[in-house]
Amino acid sequence: MNILIVHAHPEPRSFSAALKDTAVEVFGQQGHVVQVSDLHAMQFNPVASTADFTSRANPDYCVYALEQRHAVSTGTLRKDIQEELEKLRWCDLLVLNFPIFWYGPPAILKGWIDRVFVSGVTYGGKRFYDRGGLVGKRALVSVTLGGQQHMFGPRGIHGPLEDMLKPLLQGTLGYTGFSVHHPFIGWHIPYLDDSQRATVLQDWRTRLMNLHAEQDWCPQPTLNDFDDRLYPREGSVS
Amino acid sequence: MNILIVHAHPEPRSFSAALKDTAVEVFGQQGHVVQVSDLHAMQFNPVASTADFTSRANPDYCVYALEQRHAVSTGTLRKDIQEELEKLRWCDLLVLNFPIFWYGPPAILKGWIDRVFVSGVTYGGKRFYDRGGLVGKRALVSVTLGGQQHMFGPRGIHGPLEDMLKPLLQGTLGYTGFSVHHPFIGWHIPYLDDSQRATVLQDWRTRLMNLHAEQDWCPQPTLNDFDDRLYPREGSVS
Repeated sequence: MNILIVHAHPEPRSFSAALKDTAVEVFGQQGHVVQVSDLHAMQFNPVASTADFTSRANPDYCVYALEQRHAVSTGTLRKDIQEELEKLRWCDLLVLNFPIFWYGPPAILKGWIDRVFVSGVTYGGKRFYDRGGLVGKRALVSVTLGGQQHMFGPRGIHGPLEDMLKPLLQGTLGYTGFSVHHPFIGWHIPYLDDSQRATVLQDWRTRLMNLHAEQDWCPQPTLNDFDDRLYPREGSVS
Repeated sequence: MNILIVHAHPEPRSFSAALKDTAVEVFGQQGHVVQVSDLHAMQFNPVASTADFTSRANPDYCVYALEQRHAVSTGTLRKDIQEELEKLRWCDLLVLNFPIFWYGPPAILKGWIDRVFVSGVTYGGKRFYDRGGLVGKRALVSVTLGGQQHMFGPRGIHGPLEDMLKPLLQGTLGYTGFSVHHPFIGWHIPYLDDSQRATVLQDWRTRLMNLHAEQDWCPQPTLNDFDDRLYPREGSVS
């Protein structure tokens, strides 16, 4: 497999970085080809702006997605976007590895999505969910956070973490066609001692070694359950 | 009231900008004091990084939230963060106005939250939800998107938009203590003609003029329903 790991932690010595390094090691041992986009090390620019387009479909009024399509068709995507898009198209498995900031990805990773998940390639028109531009690829999200697992149970104070991650798991990865694995969650990380952290790392290692045997997890909708205007069809289960 | 509008659209002539301008006008007519943070115009830096701290609690290992607390206590927050934090503390009503990118705020706004919702001021320890650092303030989220309302109903293909916005509405605004209004949603905006857009703008104007009479909407948890370790108390409804 070709594997792209996108890593987004500001501290190079963080536990999140250890998860990334472990993934590189395990996947390498398995004979996979791995690329890493370490967004802080790359000083990746996360701001989707008019400056992203050197040739404009409409110089007077920027609809970002329409300009993305124009840039794809004219071969004028900015170099930093083009390089990341090529990695995204190249990979069979995408791993997004980050600390939870405000119940989601840090802005540097959100902006990697805003800019690199280009309209006309990853989605567009009726090409989304099981007809998305990236159908056939798999995705795994791995996160660290300070909270404990019981705070995110069905009766937990915050509700399920998977619900908080819905914009990413369904709205981004599922939407563009990825088969999505259940996220790997490192609970309570800043408060663990070295021995407890070693246990989490071992759980991660075991998870990665057996990833090929996992079932998909994310319950993406199926476009056949909806009509041409995306109203639910009679008798569909949605 | 003191009102802070944070606006995050890359196109100055966008419909989202018209919503922002209308809000400035209506609030001004009502005698409120309004400040606008137009994040693209300000070229706001959304990347939470070690560069945010000029004096470090731990120079060898950056835990972002701990460095935020240190910077607050030593008065060494970076100027761009300090200025936005002062606006946030000043306001009685916060309006976040943005186009939906991947079912959430664009990275430039996500990063405004990552950097400006400073630990030790907006939350910290057991100060969250109804004990959050920003209790007493109100928040209103206004968004534009291409999707139509029926795609986000209970049987809609994407599920409720409010669920997609949970990390922002509950996990960020509710978490820090805001009373949260139901979001204003501009559906299908890129596909509307001028007359239809005028109707949406009029709905927005009416909404803003009557905002003072609205009930809170966001069902934040109440800390009293949970024990000291944040397990649900027996008999609580959570």
